Amino acid sequence: MKNYIYKYLSQIELNELLQRPAIDLEKTIEIVKPVLNEIKSGGIEAVYKYAEKFEGLKNKNLLVNDEEFDVAEKSIDAKIKSAIDSAYENIFKFHKRQFPQNYEVETLAGVKCSREFRAIENVGLYIPGGNAVLPSTMLMLGVPAKIAGCKRIVACSPSKNGVVNNILLYTAKKIGVNEFYKTGGAQAVGLMAYGTNEIKKVEKIFGPGNQFVTVAKMLVSIDMKGCTIDMPAGPSEVLIIADKSANAEFIAADLLSQAEHGKDSQVILISNSELIIEKVNDEIQKQIMQLPRKDFANKSLENAFSLLVENIDQAINFSNDYAPEHLILHVQNAESLKSKIQNAGSVFLGEYSPESAGDYASGTNHSLPTYGYAKSFGGVTVESFMKSITFQNLTKAGLKNISKTVENLADAEELFAHKNAVSIRLK
Amino acid sequence: MKNYIYKYLSQIELNELLQRPAIDLEKTIEIVKPVLNEIKSGGIEAVYKYAEKFEGLKNKNLLVNDEEFDVAEKSIDAKIKSAIDSAYENIFKFHKRQFPQNYEVETLAGVKCSREFRAIENVGLYIPGGNAVLPSTMLMLGVPAKIAGCKRIVACSPSKNGVVNNILLYTAKKIGVNEFYKTGGAQAVGLMAYGTNEIKKVEKIFGPGNQFVTVAKMLVSIDMKGCTIDMPAGPSEVLIIADKSANAEFIAADLLSQAEHGKDSQVILISNSELIIEKVNDEIQKQIMQLPRKDFANKSLENAFSLLVENIDQAINFSNDYAPEHLILHVQNAESLKSKIQNAGSVFLGEYSPESAGDYASGTNHSLPTYGYAKSFGGVTVESFMKSITFQNLTKAGLKNISKTVENLADAEELFAHKNAVSIRLK
Repeated sequence: MKNYIYKYLSQIELNELLQRPAIDLEKTIEIVKPVLNEIKSGGIEAVYKYAEKFEGLKNKNLLVNDEEFDVAEKSIDAKIKSAIDSAYENIFKFHKRQFPQNYEVETLAGVKCSREFRAIENVGLYIPGGNAVLPSTMLMLGVPAKIAGCKRIVACSPSKNGVVNNILLYTAKKIGVNEFYKTGGAQAVGLMAYGTNEIKKVEKIFGPGNQFVTVAKMLVSIDMKGCTIDMPAGPSEVLIIADKSANAEFIAADLLSQAEHGKDSQVILISNSELIIEKVNDEIQKQIMQLPRKDFANKSLENAFSLLVENIDQAINFSNDYAPEHLILHVQNAESLKSKIQNAGSVFLGEYSPESAGDYASGTNHSLPTYGYAKSFGGVTVESFMKSITFQNLTKAGLKNISKTVENLADAEELFAHKNAVSIRLK
Repeated sequence: MKNYIYKYLSQIELNELLQRPAIDLEKTIEIVKPVLNEIKSGGIEAVYKYAEKFEGLKNKNLLVNDEEFDVAEKSIDAKIKSAIDSAYENIFKFHKRQFPQNYEVETLAGVKCSREFRAIENVGLYIPGGNAVLPSTMLMLGVPAKIAGCKRIVACSPSKNGVVNNILLYTAKKIGVNEFYKTGGAQAVGLMAYGTNEIKKVEKIFGPGNQFVTVAKMLVSIDMKGCTIDMPAGPSEVLIIADKSANAEFIAADLLSQAEHGKDSQVILISNSELIIEKVNDEIQKQIMQLPRKDFANKSLENAFSLLVENIDQAINFSNDYAPEHLILHVQNAESLKSKIQNAGSVFLGEYSPESAGDYASGTNHSLPTYGYAKSFGGVTVESFMKSITFQNLTKAGLKNISKTVENLADAEELFAHKNAVSIRLK
């Protein structure tokens, strides 16, 4: 971990610390685009081809069947089952409050406007596989989809030689996933975005993934034959702000739980206490020895840094400019700082709120904006699985009340037929 | 207008009617990409270059100054000013109800989760110029931005030789636009998305535009150095459902008010009454003669069609599959059909609710999803200018309550440091 001191940094140096490592997507685009085009024109056979090539799929059968779900449910540990059930409860409780309310306003006498919400009918959940199994991601995407009332929930996850992890299948069944396809990568995104003769396309794709998945999602999102996506994604991040009251042991554990994600994880510690920064550095050295994934963690810590600031406001300003995915406040009266946080995905207040609580079970979502996108995006919510429709119902008197306004604006915009649609009704 | 009969159509023919005309963006991408790259590396000089080339900009000055705003306000007609003020009121009234509520839930004893909303700090509004002047679009984007509380509202609109329309400037000032740049097209999108040494970038760009603007928005939305956008955009659309009670004169006026937008406007009439379809066809011929923009309207009507259905439910199902930007229900008891509408941007209920009412002044937004995107997107709202942040605050007892769940899930995902961040706090 590099250690910087705020007051000795120039504006240019500060700006550099605020930058994420550049990600060059051009090469990945060149690889992914032909795969998507092949699926768009070749349908299911093209999906089989890539699933066979990259995932060792042995037969032309991607759909998980009822028997596989049943076997999964029976085979998994009671302890794991109960952990999933408990996490489900908490996530459900927090997310059901997000269900949006319809409303109606009479903007002028006789002019009633309303807004109503509808679930997106067909949604696709991408659950990464690869090295780790991520039932928690299935919960984080599936629970809001279920609360929203999506009619058809499709899930895709990479298989190993045609087999998907049982814990993931158990979670999918609990959510009510309607179709689960054993395939990942760009081919899974293509399958969901374009559909095939056999499998209906979805209208929006959710979920994290590696660079191929990210690029595939981006490409289908700008293809008018494709579909919408939840948000762009970069590597996972944590920024911790700590004052002198903080516990260095806890902070080190939090930094490491981010660092173990992968070698490109972003890890930042900001404190107004030199002592705390020192102690955390020492603690990291101690704790990292115990970690099975210490190679990942060590690699990611090479890019990590600490920043010694003069006061906590300076730390918060830096954090707002950085817009971290996860922000942990190891400070006294953390709750009182909430209103100062402008840009962040999910925030952990106080010393007993580790990031892993939110990753799994506190109730908040862990599908969060990275790479500074927290400046314009929040994490996944129930509303992410819905859209709104507006309605207006005017009486003749109501139309009369706004007729001059409409006619004069239509005049200003030189749209005569727009004007006439009002005039003809009132003549 | 072509006329079809539902019961004589095969599923394939029906599917064809549901398709929008294909839009090939590849050529536009080839033109727009170099412009964006040039702005990304060359900054403001590159913007000047294209503003000079395409808009006749004469000096290196894009920013509208206070004097120009004052002159605009003094020069415009009192009638127009009052129309803008009235529309503003109605739009404000409807949109302020969208301001989202923070909330907190205790998901388990000692585990408090909350969600809070923040305005996106820097937003960019693109207001098309070209042939028409569109103060209404400034209202539709600016009012929700203002209600959201965006700190810095930037607007761009094409100029003619360095001059922007006065009505547009008056509206911008009323909204509280902080910076108004006289430039349009891809260069305006590049300016807002990437910023320059002189002008700070924005985090999200809103607003409609021609194909160059649309493609530029798409490209910056998948560039991690770029920014987010409101939604993809295609040509404007209306779908009208009419029963035998409907007034053919009104319907014709509504179809034409859509058709006059441009030659690629999409216009569809669905009815269970052959007589109504006939009468509307006749009325269109009569009314179109009066229109200054009849060339546009005629061109767009070549692609328009009517569909004779057996009943109104069939019409609504077709409409839900098509997902029109604007849907007008010229039927008895239109209000009672609201709950059946699944996919549409904005809906106009009953014979006194013409589309132009919503285009300008009823209060609903006219920045709406086209090209079928209403299946996953709603129109622009106050929330479009905001994002949410989640928070969690756990007591030691709270952490204890979820510790087994977190530890067991971390075990299942083989993330030991995630588990340790909990265990270390409770040992």
